[in-house]
Amino acid sequence: MNFPRQNLRTPGPTPIPDDVVAAMGSPMIDHRGPEFRDLILRVTQQLKQVFMTRHDVLILTASGTGALEAAIVNSLSPGDKVLMPTAGAFGDRFGDAAEAYGAQVQRLNIEWGQAIDPGLVRRALRQDPEIKAVLVTHNETSTGITHDLESISQVVKGEFGKLLLVDAVSSLGCIPLPVDGWSCDLVGTASQKGFMIPPGLSFISVSPAAWEARKSATMPRFYFDLAAARQYLELGQTPWTPNVAAFFGLSAALDKLMEQGMESVFDHHAQIAEFTRNGVRELGLELFAQDEKRASNTVTAVKIPQGVDGPRLVRIMHDDEHVVLAGGQGKLSGKIFRIGHLGYVSQEDIEEVLEALQRVLPQVGFRHG
Amino acid sequence: MNFPRQNLRTPGPTPIPDDVVAAMGSPMIDHRGPEFRDLILRVTQQLKQVFMTRHDVLILTASGTGALEAAIVNSLSPGDKVLMPTAGAFGDRFGDAAEAYGAQVQRLNIEWGQAIDPGLVRRALRQDPEIKAVLVTHNETSTGITHDLESISQVVKGEFGKLLLVDAVSSLGCIPLPVDGWSCDLVGTASQKGFMIPPGLSFISVSPAAWEARKSATMPRFYFDLAAARQYLELGQTPWTPNVAAFFGLSAALDKLMEQGMESVFDHHAQIAEFTRNGVRELGLELFAQDEKRASNTVTAVKIPQGVDGPRLVRIMHDDEHVVLAGGQGKLSGKIFRIGHLGYVSQEDIEEVLEALQRVLPQVGFRHG
Repeated sequence: MNFPRQNLRTPGPTPIPDDVVAAMGSPMIDHRGPEFRDLILRVTQQLKQVFMTRHDVLILTASGTGALEAAIVNSLSPGDKVLMPTAGAFGDRFGDAAEAYGAQVQRLNIEWGQAIDPGLVRRALRQDPEIKAVLVTHNETSTGITHDLESISQVVKGEFGKLLLVDAVSSLGCIPLPVDGWSCDLVGTASQKGFMIPPGLSFISVSPAAWEARKSATMPRFYFDLAAARQYLELGQTPWTPNVAAFFGLSAALDKLMEQGMESVFDHHAQIAEFTRNGVRELGLELFAQDEKRASNTVTAVKIPQGVDGPRLVRIMHDDEHVVLAGGQGKLSGKIFRIGHLGYVSQEDIEEVLEALQRVLPQVGFRHG
Repeated sequence: MNFPRQNLRTPGPTPIPDDVVAAMGSPMIDHRGPEFRDLILRVTQQLKQVFMTRHDVLILTASGTGALEAAIVNSLSPGDKVLMPTAGAFGDRFGDAAEAYGAQVQRLNIEWGQAIDPGLVRRALRQDPEIKAVLVTHNETSTGITHDLESISQVVKGEFGKLLLVDAVSSLGCIPLPVDGWSCDLVGTASQKGFMIPPGLSFISVSPAAWEARKSATMPRFYFDLAAARQYLELGQTPWTPNVAAFFGLSAALDKLMEQGMESVFDHHAQIAEFTRNGVRELGLELFAQDEKRASNTVTAVKIPQGVDGPRLVRIMHDDEHVVLAGGQGKLSGKIFRIGHLGYVSQEDIEEVLEALQRVLPQVGFRHG
């Protein structure tokens, strides 16, 4: 493809390291042969380390939404009551998927830009003992907020023993999420975020309680049947033809993550995020996160100042500076822009963004101070 | 990845041309930006030429089974009666997917290795006027048979006006399938077969009658909702993050197909297939297809001769000759082996297979003549 070099700073897809690109170009192999068996067994073990789980992790050829649909249809039945605290577009989407399959979704709408208060979850669960599961988005990509999943889990699992389904698409591999430590039942994430490979694979962890729930769950499923995925994994296969090239890339990327060590990867994301937030403030801009302690370490949402044409800002950054930012989604369209800093990202990448913003902001009517 | 050079002759994934591999390694782009919009609009137009349709073609980030699930859940309701003539593992799978979503599937079991008799389809449709749709596998990969879809369509559409859902995973792009000419309503195929790119994308055509059926179809759907895919396509996007790297490869591969011309691509597959069948017979082996006129131009199934250990044959071909064949699936396990010749394949590739078979067959107890 004939594109100019870009500094791709959307919150996924992320740029891909050269050695991962090279691995993805390895010659195709039989997905029912010994080479693929070795590959899937190895990457599955490595993924378990990233998920910090001793239980199952399964790989699906689909993007993150597919893994979230899998979480729902493998643990719930039509008519099941589900609690969904949401403070953004992705929280909403998770609930939309559950509703599409007939769940009764009780939405706990929290102001976008705020974090979910675990106390609200407690109150909702107390009020309706029939709620079977809680759907939580760990990192809300649309607002740049990381919800306090640990405290939410203490309520959902510790106090009430409900099923906990987690959208970890833009957090896992970048922000600590100890799946077993926080007793999460089904956690879905995707390849194009923390994993430094292109979109096209998603990963889902399944706890023993989730397998137990599956026994009586009657939502229909075929492509996303996790029992089929587990059964084939025992043979070193997948039920349907897998995205083999992305598996090659995943293996190379996981080797890099393992070599660096997950603690160091988490620290790197925390440092880059802080650098981004400080830089944005120094430009005279305001963070969208109301409580900076909950500002995401993978994506920073920035308020578009009064009088500034937000879409034009994003367009000039793209066209003239070759810096690709994300605008606001849904009701935040035109109100924020977002800088992704997850997966394959360096401080220099962010410096480039900040320098470009400094040049472009005055062109779109912004006056600092 | 560190694999020896193989002659990958499974019926998908196929080897990938070097320029397609190079295209796939292009820097990642924003899937909601102008570069991706241009890309998806261009490849969608080219796909319509390959599908020979003026109607919609949608691209899903999933393997072929996902596209077949999409065909089902977007056109049917639980309880709908569906006719499924099947003569192999993939015919069966198509019906399994429909059953998983609550369709009443009437299976018309035809002996594996034979082609579907359109007369049987006519009789079944006459006997039960409540049948709403017919599921047909165009090319049965498990037996190496191409069913007479044109004649079947004349019955299903021409005589009865039922919905026609087609699994074209291992045919489209290699064997003529004029989607509009044969009045097919929903036709699903996948990237790793005729399209010379890795697995991870699937393509589905949708006729006006299929859209009409969707209005009253109540099977649940979210990830595979074709109306969402069509709506986002109007913006040059996909509802969920797409497999961007495979889109890059698809664009390069479609350029190659368009340059060669589809007629020439079809001829090439017909010639290679005939060369394969002749070569196999010259070795003293027997084709599995009972009627050679219906033998597939994308995969040749060969009977394992009496006294020969089939799995051992396939294993030695793999380990010593680096030729990767496919064994038999399901009830054909140990009874046939299969040679894939679809997508990126040359006569030299097949010559290599035949020469290797000549060396290996005596080692597994075969005596010619």
